[in-house]
Amino acid sequence: MNTPLGKKKWVIPEGYIPGWSHGDSPDLESHDALLILNTSNKTAHVEIYIYFEDKDPVGPYSVIINPIRTKHLLVNDFTSPQPIPRETAYSSVISSDTPVVVEYTRLDSRQAENALLTTIAYPVEERKSNG
Amino acid sequence: MNTPLGKKKWVIPEGYIPGWSHGDSPDLESHDALLILNTSNKTAHVEIYIYFEDKDPVGPYSVIINPIRTKHLLVNDFTSPQPIPRETAYSSVISSDTPVVVEYTRLDSRQAENALLTTIAYPVEERKSNG
Amino acid sequence: MNTPLGKKKWVIPEGYIPGWSHGDSPDLESHDALLILNTSNKTAHVEIYIYFEDKDPVGPYSVIINPIRTKHLLVNDFTSPQPIPRETAYSSVISSDTPVVVEYTRLDSRQAENALLTTIAYPVEERKSNG
Amino acid sequence: MNTPLGKKKWVIPEGYIPGWSHGDSPDLESHDALLILNTSNKTAHVEIYIYFEDKDPVGPYSVIINPIRTKHLLVNDFTSPQPIPRETAYSSVISSDTPVVVEYTRLDSRQAENALLTTIAYPVEERKSNG
Repeated sequence: MNTPLGKKKWVIPEGYIPGWSHGDSPDLESHDALLILNTSNKTAHVEIYIYFEDKDPVGPYSVIINPIRTKHLLVNDFTSPQPIPRETAYSSVISSDTPVVVEYTRLDSRQAENALLTTIAYPVEERKSNG
Repeated sequence: MNTPLGKKKWVIPEGYIPGWSHGDSPDLESHDALLILNTSNKTAHVEIYIYFEDKDPVGPYSVIINPIRTKHLLVNDFTSPQPIPRETAYSSVISSDTPVVVEYTRLDSRQAENALLTTIAYPVEERKSNG
Repeated sequence: MNTPLGKKKWVIPEGYIPGWSHGDSPDLESHDALLILNTSNKTAHVEIYIYFEDKDPVGPYSVIINPIRTKHLLVNDFTSPQPIPRETAYSSVISSDTPVVVEYTRLDSRQAENALLTTIAYPVEERKSNG
Repeated sequence: MNTPLGKKKWVIPEGYIPGWSHGDSPDLESHDALLILNTSNKTAHVEIYIYFEDKDPVGPYSVIINPIRTKHLLVNDFTSPQPIPRETAYSSVISSDTPVVVEYTRLDSRQAENALLTTIAYPVEERKSNG
C-alpha cells in the first residue's frame, strides 16, 4: 500500500482564477485547485512554478505532502513568493522529489450556478539521461 | 471481444462528496462515481483504497466486476470498512487482479443547476520487477 | 498532413444518456457524443461495442470515417443493432482499422442550465504479439 | 526550469464554438480555447490544422509562443487563413517545432449559467523513423 505511484513532474496548461464568486457558502467560492496524492512512505517535497503569457515564471511555491496523504491545494491561497493574479491566464509545472499523481480542478461560481472542470495533469516521462 | 484491456492499477487524486443536493430526482443527487470496465472473460476482483489529507488511508473497499461488464460505483454508497466522510477531500487508488479501465465522474447539484466533471483515471504502468 | 495519428482501440468507461432535456433548442438536447478524428488518407472502418452492468455487450455499431475528416457521433442516435437505453450506465470500446483519436463529451440539460463533461478516451497500446 | 517539456504534436477531437452567449461580461462569452505551454528557452513555432466533418482541413493557423511563456488561444478569434465557423463540429491537430503541452477548454454560456469542460490533449508519440 506504500508503493510510490506516479511521476516526479507534471504539467497543467490551463489555469485561471475567476475574479468573483456567487456561491452560498465558502466551499462554493470560485477556485483553482491542484490535487496531489503521495502514496509513498516518504515525504514529498513539491515545487510549483507558475507560467504566464507576458512575464517570467514565478516560483517555486513549496509544498510538503506527508507520506500516504493527499493534498488539495487552492491556487487562490498561494502567497509566497507572491499571490497569483486573478483573471489572468497561467500554466503550472509541478515537480516532486518522490513520485506523486496530480490532477487539476476548477470550480467557477461567477454566475448563479457553479461550473466544474477537471483533468489529470500531463505526466512527464523521466529520461534515463536525467537520472 | 473478450480481450482484457487496460491496467491493473489506477489513481484518481480528485475526490469530494458534496454535502448536499438540490436535484429534482434521485439521479440528480450529488455524487462521486468510479466507473470501471472489465472487458475480459475473467471476474475482476477490485480493491479500492481511499487517501485523506490528515489521517491514514482506509480500505480496501472490495468490489467484484463480472466478465464483460461495467460497474458505475457511487462512492457515496461505500460502507465497508467505513463510509466516506462528506465535504472532505480524498484520493483513490484502484487495484484489480485483471486489467480494467477506470474513469471518475462527479455530479454536483448543490446549487439549483447541476455541474459535471470527468477524467480518465491515471493508469499505473506495471513494472517488470514487480511481476 | 495525412499522417495517421492515434491508436486503433480506445476505451471509455463513462456513458449515460440522460432521460430528458430542458434546452431551448435542438443542439441543447441532452446527449452523449463520441468524437473521432481520422487524420490519415485512408477510410477508417470503426466498430463500437457497448458494455452494460447487467447484460451482455451489444455491437458492433459500425461507422465509417472518411480520410482527413472528423465525426461527432451522437450515441443517442445509435439504432443498429439496437438503440442505447436511456438512463442506463454503459461503457464503450471503439476499434478502428486505421489509427484514430477518440474523445467523449456529454451535454446534460436535465435542469434549466446545461452541464458539460469531456475526456480524451483511454488509448489501448498495441501489443507486438497481437500485431 | 527551462527544460522543454511535452510533445511536438497534439490532437483534440472535440471542438465546437457555441453560436451565442448569455454572459454578464466579455470573459463569460462562449469560447473554445487552446492552452499551450512552452517551458523551453526557445521560441515555439506552432501550426494548427482544423478538421471538419464534411470538408477538407483548413490551416495552418500559425502561432508563436515565446520561451518560458504560456498562451491561451481563443479559437473564436482565429482569422487566417479563415475564421472557424460557429455551431460546427471540428477537431484540431497542433504541431510545434519544440516540445509543448496542450490542453483544451470550452466555456459554454448559451444558457443563463455557464458550463465548462477541459481535457489535456492527446499527445502523439514521436517515432524514431520520422526523425
